[in-house]
Amino acid sequence: MFEVIDRDGLGRLGLLETRHGPVRTPALMPVVNPNKVLIPPAEMAQRFGAEVVITNAYILYTSKEQKDVDLHDHLGFPGPIMTDSGAFQQHVYGDVDVSNREIVEYQARIGSDLVTMLDVFSEPEHSQTRAAADVDETLRRAAEAVGVKAANAEPGFALVGAVQGGIHPEERTRCAQELSNLDVDIAAIGGVVPLMESYRFQDLVKVIVASKQGLRPRLPVHLFGAGHPMVFALAALLGCDLFDSASYAKYARAGRMMFVDGTRHAAELEFANCECPVCTQISPGELKGNERALAEHNLYVSFAEIRRVRQAIKAGELWELVERRCRAHPALLDGLKELRRHAQWLERFEPVSRHNALFYTGPETVYRPILYRFRQRLQERYSPPRRRTLVMFPEDGKPYMVHYRPAMEKVEAVCNAHFLVKSAFGPVPIELDEMYPNSQSLVPEQLDLEVLEASEVFARHFLAGAGYEFGVLWEGAATLTELEKRREDPNPLDWVLQRVRATSDMQFGRGAADALLAGQVELVRSKNTGRVRNVIVDGRHVLSMRAHDGLFSLRVEGGKVLHRAFPKPTLRVVVETETAEFNRLGKNVFAKFVREADPELRPRDEVLVVDQEDRLAAVGQAVLNPEEMVDFDRGVAVRVREGLPAS
Amino acid sequence: MFEVIDRDGLGRLGLLETRHGPVRTPALMPVVNPNKVLIPPAEMAQRFGAEVVITNAYILYTSKEQKDVDLHDHLGFPGPIMTDSGAFQQHVYGDVDVSNREIVEYQARIGSDLVTMLDVFSEPEHSQTRAAADVDETLRRAAEAVGVKAANAEPGFALVGAVQGGIHPEERTRCAQELSNLDVDIAAIGGVVPLMESYRFQDLVKVIVASKQGLRPRLPVHLFGAGHPMVFALAALLGCDLFDSASYAKYARAGRMMFVDGTRHAAELEFANCECPVCTQISPGELKGNERALAEHNLYVSFAEIRRVRQAIKAGELWELVERRCRAHPALLDGLKELRRHAQWLERFEPVSRHNALFYTGPETVYRPILYRFRQRLQERYSPPRRRTLVMFPEDGKPYMVHYRPAMEKVEAVCNAHFLVKSAFGPVPIELDEMYPNSQSLVPEQLDLEVLEASEVFARHFLAGAGYEFGVLWEGAATLTELEKRREDPNPLDWVLQRVRATSDMQFGRGAADALLAGQVELVRSKNTGRVRNVIVDGRHVLSMRAHDGLFSLRVEGGKVLHRAFPKPTLRVVVETETAEFNRLGKNVFAKFVREADPELRPRDEVLVVDQEDRLAAVGQAVLNPEEMVDFDRGVAVRVREGLPAS
Repeated sequence: MFEVIDRDGLGRLGLLETRHGPVRTPALMPVVNPNKVLIPPAEMAQRFGAEVVITNAYILYTSKEQKDVDLHDHLGFPGPIMTDSGAFQQHVYGDVDVSNREIVEYQARIGSDLVTMLDVFSEPEHSQTRAAADVDETLRRAAEAVGVKAANAEPGFALVGAVQGGIHPEERTRCAQELSNLDVDIAAIGGVVPLMESYRFQDLVKVIVASKQGLRPRLPVHLFGAGHPMVFALAALLGCDLFDSASYAKYARAGRMMFVDGTRHAAELEFANCECPVCTQISPGELKGNERALAEHNLYVSFAEIRRVRQAIKAGELWELVERRCRAHPALLDGLKELRRHAQWLERFEPVSRHNALFYTGPETVYRPILYRFRQRLQERYSPPRRRTLVMFPEDGKPYMVHYRPAMEKVEAVCNAHFLVKSAFGPVPIELDEMYPNSQSLVPEQLDLEVLEASEVFARHFLAGAGYEFGVLWEGAATLTELEKRREDPNPLDWVLQRVRATSDMQFGRGAADALLAGQVELVRSKNTGRVRNVIVDGRHVLSMRAHDGLFSLRVEGGKVLHRAFPKPTLRVVVETETAEFNRLGKNVFAKFVREADPELRPRDEVLVVDQEDRLAAVGQAVLNPEEMVDFDRGVAVRVREGLPAS
Repeated sequence: MFEVIDRDGLGRLGLLETRHGPVRTPALMPVVNPNKVLIPPAEMAQRFGAEVVITNAYILYTSKEQKDVDLHDHLGFPGPIMTDSGAFQQHVYGDVDVSNREIVEYQARIGSDLVTMLDVFSEPEHSQTRAAADVDETLRRAAEAVGVKAANAEPGFALVGAVQGGIHPEERTRCAQELSNLDVDIAAIGGVVPLMESYRFQDLVKVIVASKQGLRPRLPVHLFGAGHPMVFALAALLGCDLFDSASYAKYARAGRMMFVDGTRHAAELEFANCECPVCTQISPGELKGNERALAEHNLYVSFAEIRRVRQAIKAGELWELVERRCRAHPALLDGLKELRRHAQWLERFEPVSRHNALFYTGPETVYRPILYRFRQRLQERYSPPRRRTLVMFPEDGKPYMVHYRPAMEKVEAVCNAHFLVKSAFGPVPIELDEMYPNSQSLVPEQLDLEVLEASEVFARHFLAGAGYEFGVLWEGAATLTELEKRREDPNPLDWVLQRVRATSDMQFGRGAADALLAGQVELVRSKNTGRVRNVIVDGRHVLSMRAHDGLFSLRVEGGKVLHRAFPKPTLRVVVETETAEFNRLGKNVFAKFVREADPELRPRDEVLVVDQEDRLAAVGQAVLNPEEMVDFDRGVAVRVREGLPAS
């Protein structure tokens, strides 16, 4: 019932099907008080773009006269409606007067589209032992709710299971894993409101990460009680798809206005510091005490931020948005800094390139998964050309090879050196200068000290394993004099070929270049830019280089070579044999038919589509990562570029 | 014609009087094309809140048929109208077909409220020699324009003089200084559009700083051609009051949308990532090509940002806003980092405290003027109590003294130590823990490396001059064991008194505490919090401590003491003797009547108001800094707290 259309980081543009229509995610569900409707749901949809609303079934259940309603009639809303179970009321009042079975059956009866189980709310101060017991009970109830769903005469609703576990990562992960084994449709991360209320954003990040690590990727994830636009971008980056906001109304009642950078009392504003339709018409003085207008402001701002997050995912700018948003409060900055500790996990979900340039926003940028990956792959996949001497350039103009060409020629007249650039993000062998994000990134001229030091450490780490006999920092004429002492007979490298070799290995794995380029190599270059466009080997077009990210698109002839050169499971996406026929015709691979996938693949990697007998059927570009491909049963897993007709 | 109502950094909430009504600043003046009005000025005012518009007199002048118009009739706008002279057209076309005298006289004739001289536009690539010649000619023309204004039968218009000088700080400052000696009403910093177009924000900051350093403070400053909301906050922080935007229309024509974090093509948007009235009603797909709607979006966003800047000045949050905005692009970050180099100058305009807490947003925060000042004053004004031993605490809980009280008591049972906290921002003697911004600041738990190192350097710098025999980092029991070796007879400090002493010296200068506390001291403390409220010496109420910033309000009895203790000009604001009578009655000091002021005073400092014979007339709080007080002829310079009746 959920599919991923596009992604950035763990953030996903998704489509959630419900029996009352589809919901695009990330989505914000405004909370509607069933007994006191401030803004009617139909208006929520029309004016603010709400595609789904949420109301509290527990409140409806405990208010006698309204017990047996048709929820959609009652709220006057024909779209999808989610109901909550009263779990949050436990947090507020300590206890609730309903059982899990009762409230799940009740939600089903009144026609809720997204039915929430009654989980046990663990408070942040609860010990691990206590949280573990709550997880056990939550899981028991989740199984019970699944039973209710299975027994329901007319099913059709989606079941929302909860992840609890307090601030204990092990419990969160365990709860998420066991919940994932049950037939739930959505996972809600609960128990986080106290963390958000007390600005414990580092703990919030830990909790979301631990939960996501246990959840199967196909589950849409709801971050329960997250209603402040300050956190939408950060939570979405970590893979949260659904948010609910009672805050818009609660804050309005208290005279408070929500902004992407925090909360302010209307009474403390002299100027309408917002562009929303409310603030452009009503002065802060008049706003004060106008609960309805304040609620509308809060909704305009919240929904705009959701759209901003969606757009950022689409454009590949979500990391930049998050890094900017997290400057709004030092506690959010702590949340951002926590991400660095999870770079290895985040990297598994990070696309290999984006359409937009990477912007440096501060020291945190250096630890982004895309950069972590580049440094890792350099260690694992890259083989420098055989040279005894290495000349290191400082980072100056881009692309590096164009900028440093004159210096390189001077050096090459003296000795047979290799070259790398000590970039802010780590060392970059000069022939990889156009590979994303080396050319497609912008850093300030004045780097933060932390970045300078990290860059130094990354360079030392690389050099330790690279095996050069002699390395020197480029300092112009003095360096040339130094290199004179090491004069060799000139044996210049073909840098165009080096680029093809290095990019192949970085992209497909060590050894890919040897395999792909075994034969008579012809490099077709752009007449305008001189850049490599196509790689032809023995007359066969094996690779095309993309202008925007400096990476190769794999052609089917190249796919054949890699398929022969690398054993299973490398580079493979294994599909059900009977569906491989469609891929041979050039049709995309649907996640539903994926059986296995190389664990080293990443979103937007070039892949080999093979059938269960490991026969190559097509080449294409991954949309999902391997664990997602295998888990999802909706949506495209691989966009096929070229099919291989059955021979 | 210009007065400052409130301020933050060099940013000022001002009021600019024109003959067609007042303009609140910072203000954005939308550019209206006199021959092709996209959005009528009246609508600009009503829907977007424009208080002033700008149009190009050169275009009007060169389009024959419209030569002799009444500008206000022609544009259908009863409010203030500024006119431009064609200087920008020089940049675009290389030359213009009008003289300075002609175009100034023409602007006066058509009834412009803000008449701009025709300056010579220096391009960024021009040499200093060439820029200097352009400055000379610009200054000659400025004098000529002043002549036209003086000769004008019906004056009433304000004359806008220009600051040129290319990217050469010396020329900018010289031009600004000489312009300030002429009778111009507004200073426009020109020639900056090429810098903004090529994202040279570090150069932009250098140019604005150099220009402002030469300008007299009373002049409202217009940043010519600054129409992108990305730069409003940064420019306002540096003291720019007026912006003009043709961009809203130009960008719209090109299908581009302006946001506070950059520019995007409507065509590249899938989601309406904005809360403005346009984006909440029209989808990006429909927006594409809708020039009018795009222009409206650009105006909504731009005016909201202007209001946000105003509100940030009001709330004392402008630095935070700027630091956040400058994360939108690495080149803006370079602009932000440039500010650090001007901390000493910026400090002169920085209020001594704010109502809101200081938020850490990144390594740049450490170099904010308010923190630079605290470290400087510690060197210059603070005398530690006589102790041979210093115990240094890490920064942990706040307020420090409350947090570390148990540890202090353990130490004091052993030896007579002094204490300081090694905060992220530098060393803080423990008795200054409540002085702004030590308690009123929030830092993340995980500090940037640069900050940790800077903190270390600041601490070492302080210790070098502080004269302790022995210093030790607090590490609990181990430290106590170490201190046992230095056991002394207990002679505990009265920390409440130390707070009063240290705060007095930091606020009023070294020696202030000795003077103020000479006598029988009674400290009146809050029954609830135990914090000092009032300081009574020999039965006279000399000081009151403010809860929100931990600084003293000076009472008239304290003023008498400081007046005796410190010679002229220290702490003085000298007013014309005949007006001092009003201040004696408790009325505020107007800038117009200020003759001199202690150069060490800062906005919101406590001051002694004296007459020209140095007789104390009142005590109060500075609104302006000394150079502003002396220069301005409108607005309040000192808010008088208590007058001293003539004896």
